[in-house]
Amino acid sequence: MISFKNLLCTCRSMSNRCGGQRGGGGGGGGGSGGEKAVTMQNLNPNIIKLEYAVRGPLVIRAAAIEKEIQSGAQKPFKKVIRANIGDAHAMGQKPITYVRQVLSCVILPDLISKGDFPDDVKKRASDILNSCGGKSAGAYTVSHGIEMIRKQVATYIERRDGHKANWEDIVLTAGASSAIKNVLQLFVNNIGGKPTGILIPIPQYPLYSASLAEYGLQPVRYYLNEDKNWALDVSELDRALNEAKSNVNVRALVVINPGNPTGQVLTRENIEELIKFSKKYNLLIFADEVYQDNVYAEGSKFFSFKKVMKEMGSPYDQHELASFMSVSKGYMGECGLRGGWMELCNIQPEVQANMYKAISSMLCPTTLGQSAVSCCAMPPQQGEPSYELWKKEKDAVLGSLNKRAKMIAETFNKMEGFKCNIVQGAMYAFPKFELPPKAIEAAKKDGKPPDTFYAFELLENTGICVISGSGFGQRPGTYHFRTTILPQPALLQEMLDIFQKFHSEFTKKYA
Amino acid sequence: MISFKNLLCTCRSMSNRCGGQRGGGGGGGGGSGGEKAVTMQNLNPNIIKLEYAVRGPLVIRAAAIEKEIQSGAQKPFKKVIRANIGDAHAMGQKPITYVRQVLSCVILPDLISKGDFPDDVKKRASDILNSCGGKSAGAYTVSHGIEMIRKQVATYIERRDGHKANWEDIVLTAGASSAIKNVLQLFVNNIGGKPTGILIPIPQYPLYSASLAEYGLQPVRYYLNEDKNWALDVSELDRALNEAKSNVNVRALVVINPGNPTGQVLTRENIEELIKFSKKYNLLIFADEVYQDNVYAEGSKFFSFKKVMKEMGSPYDQHELASFMSVSKGYMGECGLRGGWMELCNIQPEVQANMYKAISSMLCPTTLGQSAVSCCAMPPQQGEPSYELWKKEKDAVLGSLNKRAKMIAETFNKMEGFKCNIVQGAMYAFPKFELPPKAIEAAKKDGKPPDTFYAFELLENTGICVISGSGFGQRPGTYHFRTTILPQPALLQEMLDIFQKFHSEFTKKYA
Repeated sequence: MISFKNLLCTCRSMSNRCGGQRGGGGGGGGGSGGEKAVTMQNLNPNIIKLEYAVRGPLVIRAAAIEKEIQSGAQKPFKKVIRANIGDAHAMGQKPITYVRQVLSCVILPDLISKGDFPDDVKKRASDILNSCGGKSAGAYTVSHGIEMIRKQVATYIERRDGHKANWEDIVLTAGASSAIKNVLQLFVNNIGGKPTGILIPIPQYPLYSASLAEYGLQPVRYYLNEDKNWALDVSELDRALNEAKSNVNVRALVVINPGNPTGQVLTRENIEELIKFSKKYNLLIFADEVYQDNVYAEGSKFFSFKKVMKEMGSPYDQHELASFMSVSKGYMGECGLRGGWMELCNIQPEVQANMYKAISSMLCPTTLGQSAVSCCAMPPQQGEPSYELWKKEKDAVLGSLNKRAKMIAETFNKMEGFKCNIVQGAMYAFPKFELPPKAIEAAKKDGKPPDTFYAFELLENTGICVISGSGFGQRPGTYHFRTTILPQPALLQEMLDIFQKFHSEFTKKYA
Repeated sequence: MISFKNLLCTCRSMSNRCGGQRGGGGGGGGGSGGEKAVTMQNLNPNIIKLEYAVRGPLVIRAAAIEKEIQSGAQKPFKKVIRANIGDAHAMGQKPITYVRQVLSCVILPDLISKGDFPDDVKKRASDILNSCGGKSAGAYTVSHGIEMIRKQVATYIERRDGHKANWEDIVLTAGASSAIKNVLQLFVNNIGGKPTGILIPIPQYPLYSASLAEYGLQPVRYYLNEDKNWALDVSELDRALNEAKSNVNVRALVVINPGNPTGQVLTRENIEELIKFSKKYNLLIFADEVYQDNVYAEGSKFFSFKKVMKEMGSPYDQHELASFMSVSKGYMGECGLRGGWMELCNIQPEVQANMYKAISSMLCPTTLGQSAVSCCAMPPQQGEPSYELWKKEKDAVLGSLNKRAKMIAETFNKMEGFKCNIVQGAMYAFPKFELPPKAIEAAKKDGKPPDTFYAFELLENTGICVISGSGFGQRPGTYHFRTTILPQPALLQEMLDIFQKFHSEFTKKYA
């Protein structure tokens, strides 16, 4: 792991803090330990342990390089290409007009009467405002979200799955991350002196490892099968669980579908196996389904865990499940608005009431994030004035992502020593690549995992920011990185061209 | 404490959950324990312990009553008056035009070119958009907030205090609550087998007790001096700390100024004493200063802990401090947007970097909440086109709150057995009242603390929702409730009239 401390000096100045000279310590932040109420010695150890690579040292360095360029520093490139995070708008994707029109009317209701917007926009904004205290987006909402919007989400789920959804089991949240943490937190408990273990995929989205560290929960790592396009093998889950169970109480299974960072879309049969496995070992399923609209590969189709569970009948349809969705992904890509939801299935009512109570101390998710959820769950319907434009914009985004998903895998597969699975869904490619022994040695000297060394070299030489596989986890001895497929087509082509050139030079250098 | 479980059935249906029949258990939520991954037996015990009265049973019941009224139920009143939470817009306060215009342009940039808005509105929105990835509010921002807005906050603090503020020590957050939790979390650690204790006022805002419970931190309760208008006595702090220190490591002091629920505004001398006390015992100060714009009483003035600390000179100006602010309070009252900030002073740099790392796993606070922070920290200046209207609206809100603060204390002081301190600041009154022995008996029979029994009686008979003192803490044997001063003047008068009538009938009934 790269020390966060080493990179600290790039992102904040050490002197003249709080408008004055610091007493004691100074320099690298050590020293004055004993005088402070919070020191590295008495800091919450889980906070020290927590790592979140997607916004970690590589990204901090990328931001520093951007500042250097702004200040006129000479670099072998003109701009940083941020392929590190699924941030569609930052990479040039345009907002969906309907969403933004509704939100502007919610924030400034005068716009509704002005009449510049289609009727369905005005109606939706009015409906949302009528659900807000004092008809203002400035009022707190119920902690788990506006009832009308929870009902819209239930309807969305019913249409998606063909099965009833109970709006009272829907919780609106400020993005999927906080919802996932709300559920993870339930498991913090040492029963029989053993902490709770949570099965997480490797590679995984590092929110899971970060949150488990934060809560003192134990990751129980199961490997995705790269040779089978990152499928989940139940035998591997069995291995992971059985090896862990003498030290931890394994109580939940995290599945990310479509996969992040791996891009696979699970087959219905695979989901059935996972539900059976979870039932066998009494595991609550975390179904991270935030990429449910992002399915590209022919023959791939998204099945929700809820749908499959329902259709498997008893006893599987009684199984505990929490499913997560977000407005940050899909075709909207509204990351900055912070909107998402979870659906809770078959959670014991008193447990659920306790979770709702815990959520209430954070008051409520943002009203505008909730408004975006409303637009996501219940977009314009055929015949409504906004429908045609909405459909056109949505199809354009998803169509373009589809092309980029193919383009990126094809390009990487042409590169020496690279192997990239098909990007069936989500927004990322996670290619495997070989590193010459001399590069591995150089990385060792530099104190970095080899793939992180590679990613730093890429960043410093080309401005391309990807996240090395060690931030997501990978089989020992293999090297990967995650790149998004989000740069707009021309920029993505440019990025891939630069990448190929870099890789061939890197390979030569360390041959 | 009232059991959350008892009220469960009022807020969610038990049958037909997740669109199907529940297996096992049923009824009250017990029963099927062993079959579930999460049960009341293995649930995180801290979540069970957590109580948050401001959104607890009284408020859940208030919502249920509102639904009953909607469904045509006959009640001795026509509407619920929600005086339970500092939610200004819900109580009829109008948004500040400038804030809403800026936000609408941020969300729909077409509005900037349309030209219906003043130039300073358009400029601010453009500045914010230029600070966003892809110039869209849909992009993630840096986890601790947009640099430009952090700098605006630093300027705000410099103008307020007359001392330099370092923008890199400002963290933008989704409201003050999440900032407070970010800092509290640093203290989770058992050193020498003892948990961390945090000094909190009694009465307190229940976010503190809830979050301490959530993190397994120990509250060390110090009583505010009701007879001295809720001042903080250092001798009482000394008592609390010294009684606690054999069981816990006391490492931080929470001060809410202006006070919630108590409405006091601390004198500069009192703040100096608190800083000296904190220095003596090496306590990080949590300065909850979200009501800094809400000061009403003549002779009262807000002093920030930062300012006083700076002006006390060495060694006090080196002391660890986290100060919190929010757009939910003050004159904007934009609770639903979720915007706030904290300023960190003299935190050890490596500790601060670790906190920033932990914050990063939650991606970023909402861009629109951050935009509201921009408007709060850097409102229109004299000479700018929006200044006059902004000033007029701000003065009207604060002027009206000022009148209501006086009106509420005067009315309660006229009521038999009531004693209400002056509301010097914030948004609440916290009167003390006496209860006849028969009422205390009736409460006992009903399984409720006496003041909670009173608050439920008030709610069921009048529709007025206040929160009983036991939700905030109070000296044993005393009874209080918190009411906001937020209902608009006519409604507040109506509420106080109904309240007086209820109280006299209640007193007669239990005489």
